[in-house]
Amino acid sequence: MFVIEVYDVNEKRVAKVLKISRKYLYWVQNSVLEGEISEANYKKLKMELKRIINTSEDSVIFYTFRTTRYSQRESIGIVKGGESNIY
Amino acid sequence: MFVIEVYDVNEKRVAKVLKISRKYLYWVQNSVLEGEISEANYKKLKMELKRIINTSEDSVIFYTFRTTRYSQRESIGIVKGGESNIY
Repeated sequence: MFVIEVYDVNEKRVAKVLKISRKYLYWVQNSVLEGEISEANYKKLKMELKRIINTSEDSVIFYTFRTTRYSQRESIGIVKGGESNIY
Repeated sequence: MFVIEVYDVNEKRVAKVLKISRKYLYWVQNSVLEGEISEANYKKLKMELKRIINTSEDSVIFYTFRTTRYSQRESIGIVKGGESNIY
């Protein structure tokens, strides 16, 4: 499945959250990552992040898609991150 | 159609970008908005943002979906923004 991850965490934990997330997904911009991921790895990713974040202060949202057939990504301005090969 | 917008802009322009984006979409977290939008309003949103942002420094990404039938949103940690009624 395809996942878009957006995080909003205390700056003390940004580097750790990014490091974990990059093991599974591509960094696209600021606090956004995306990529194709297996159900098992998606569970691992969430488990690893739950160990790191402060759940009363930090927020991580995952948008998951079974298909990317109907989706499109459009950018305005500069492209900051690496591009995944999904689109 | 359904849109997820993520922006990474210079802090001087964050308030303006957020103000424009909120006319069309719901704020969900940090620099993320989402919502149902018409093709015409999506064009207007992009036009208004292009007028504001510095395209050599700022980045705005739109993920657009014709359907949300196969999508799911999952959060870990606190919920910071308003929820749209799509999920």
